[in-house]
Amino acid sequence: MELEFLGTGAGVPARQRNVTSVALKLLDERNEIWLFDVGEATQHQILKTTLKPRKVKKIFLTHLHGDHLFGLPGFLSSRSFQGGDEPLIIYGPKGIEEYVRTSLKISESHLTYPLNFVVLPNKGILLDDETFRVECAKLDHRIASYGFRIIEKDHPGELQVAKLQADSVPAGPVYAKIKKGETVTLADGRQINGQDYIGHAQKGRIVTIIGDTRNCEAIVPLAANADVLVHESTFGKQEQKIAHQYYHSTNINAAKVAKKAQVNRLLLTHISARYLGQAVRELQNDARAIFKNTKVVSDLDIYDIPFHGRKDE
Amino acid sequence: MELEFLGTGAGVPARQRNVTSVALKLLDERNEIWLFDVGEATQHQILKTTLKPRKVKKIFLTHLHGDHLFGLPGFLSSRSFQGGDEPLIIYGPKGIEEYVRTSLKISESHLTYPLNFVVLPNKGILLDDETFRVECAKLDHRIASYGFRIIEKDHPGELQVAKLQADSVPAGPVYAKIKKGETVTLADGRQINGQDYIGHAQKGRIVTIIGDTRNCEAIVPLAANADVLVHESTFGKQEQKIAHQYYHSTNINAAKVAKKAQVNRLLLTHISARYLGQAVRELQNDARAIFKNTKVVSDLDIYDIPFHGRKDE
Ligand SMILES: [Zn+2]
Ligand SMILES: [Zn+2]
Repeated sequence: MELEFLGTGAGVPARQRNVTSVALKLLDERNEIWLFDVGEATQHQILKTTLKPRKVKKIFLTHLHGDHLFGLPGFLSSRSFQGGDEPLIIYGPKGIEEYVRTSLKISESHLTYPLNFVVLPNKGILLDDETFRVECAKLDHRIASYGFRIIEKDHPGELQVAKLQADSVPAGPVYAKIKKGETVTLADGRQINGQDYIGHAQKGRIVTIIGDTRNCEAIVPLAANADVLVHESTFGKQEQKIAHQYYHSTNINAAKVAKKAQVNRLLLTHISARYLGQAVRELQNDARAIFKNTKVVSDLDIYDIPFHGRKDE
Repeated sequence: MELEFLGTGAGVPARQRNVTSVALKLLDERNEIWLFDVGEATQHQILKTTLKPRKVKKIFLTHLHGDHLFGLPGFLSSRSFQGGDEPLIIYGPKGIEEYVRTSLKISESHLTYPLNFVVLPNKGILLDDETFRVECAKLDHRIASYGFRIIEKDHPGELQVAKLQADSVPAGPVYAKIKKGETVTLADGRQINGQDYIGHAQKGRIVTIIGDTRNCEAIVPLAANADVLVHESTFGKQEQKIAHQYYHSTNINAAKVAKKAQVNRLLLTHISARYLGQAVRELQNDARAIFKNTKVVSDLDIYDIPFHGRKDE
């Protein structure tokens, strides 16, 4: 489970940062990639990575401003051109289907795969399957904008078959009971406690991705106890008024949310082109004064999201 | 008058070539830039040049395939963001206005300048003013695709005022007659032949830009005696059948047209990503065997278009 940032800029593309897109790589978990926002030239950024467009099975749009959207028709066409044939589902605000269908119709692009759309509710569950649940909630932007909470289901402890074999517990239906943690009596009279043969269960991870927004009440619940919070930080602390006026957040807004929601790590993105070099380090340092584990991300940065138990954080 | 190639690839963006766009720089002639096609990330390519989006006053679309079109909404938005306020006119096939209006509506992009559309006729004159005439004609592609003939008006010879003053011809209404090349009698009795006081007239230049197409009859008239012919060359000479099947041209098709139309220079673009390095040189050499003054262009190449009289070609 990794986040790979394809574009980390705000508003318009700049030399240092492309417009917004981030890939959530669920290769081990589902052999899938999910994209969040598809700014223009996202497919160009993908050319610089190992990401395979055909592995992108879900696309989530935080909102429909061009800097989060205009790369979508090109990405869809290229996924088709490159032989993708598995269905793709797009979750986005009302209007997303009209935009995509019109773009494909006018350009006479005929996709090789089925395309489906889900219009985001103001608040609700978008999917809930064996391995993941995704929730969304509306934020506070000039146009409808959303945040996503991606919740990995807990990994139950695995049956330690090697240990059972070392202890000469013969394979058979009894393994299923042991796996459930039950205590069983073997044919040779030994009592076996299933708990001794089950590996460590791992709590699922939580990733929260917040679209363009002013600070608002919806964010903390989306971010509560997240392993990673990806939050926009269009402006720095001197620009709180401008940020509010333009329905955006500062690094300080984001850091306060991270602290309140008790996340593990804060990644700041959607950085205005006015911040370069030392100014970016200041954005980061000012946020760290409030929430220590903060990083301003750059295009093509990759962040691993470890299980809680691991010590590599 | 210069051509600056922003994207020279075919179909999908590749590391070596972006999808199609070429800028015709008319800075000396009109203080304007005209864009022909706007593939995705054209605005990103522009960031690598000195081109100013606000100077782009006209955009011509050869056809509406995504690799020629999907950069348009982003370019329009950024032109607005960067303070462009002068009108922009878009010439393109039927459907162009629906595509642009839908993209702007869904993304709630409010442009700071007026936007107008002209739907291309099968054959006709698109504009005709003091300095330029532009004609178009339909080609032979899977969808409606067009070629453009951009004709600069002749530059009349300029009145050589310094020479008149050196010869003590007093300024006055007589200058207008001299400028027309008439013979006049001065107050001191001298006869003056206007022809002696007019600089060299310069024939206007002709640039022809051909959209995606199979070889077809419409091309030679568009290209006749052009200073520069920009022609697609998706495939090489071994792929004539594939080129025909996919409604595209080979380098050989293009070179034959250049020869027949007696152009001065042939620039091959829209090169399939399969051609790299030595294969590109072969594309060029095979075309040169038919039409010597041929070049396969690369992204960000700039070509000056000199007047006929000049010797720098
Ligand atoms: Zn944005
Ligand atoms: Zn094309």
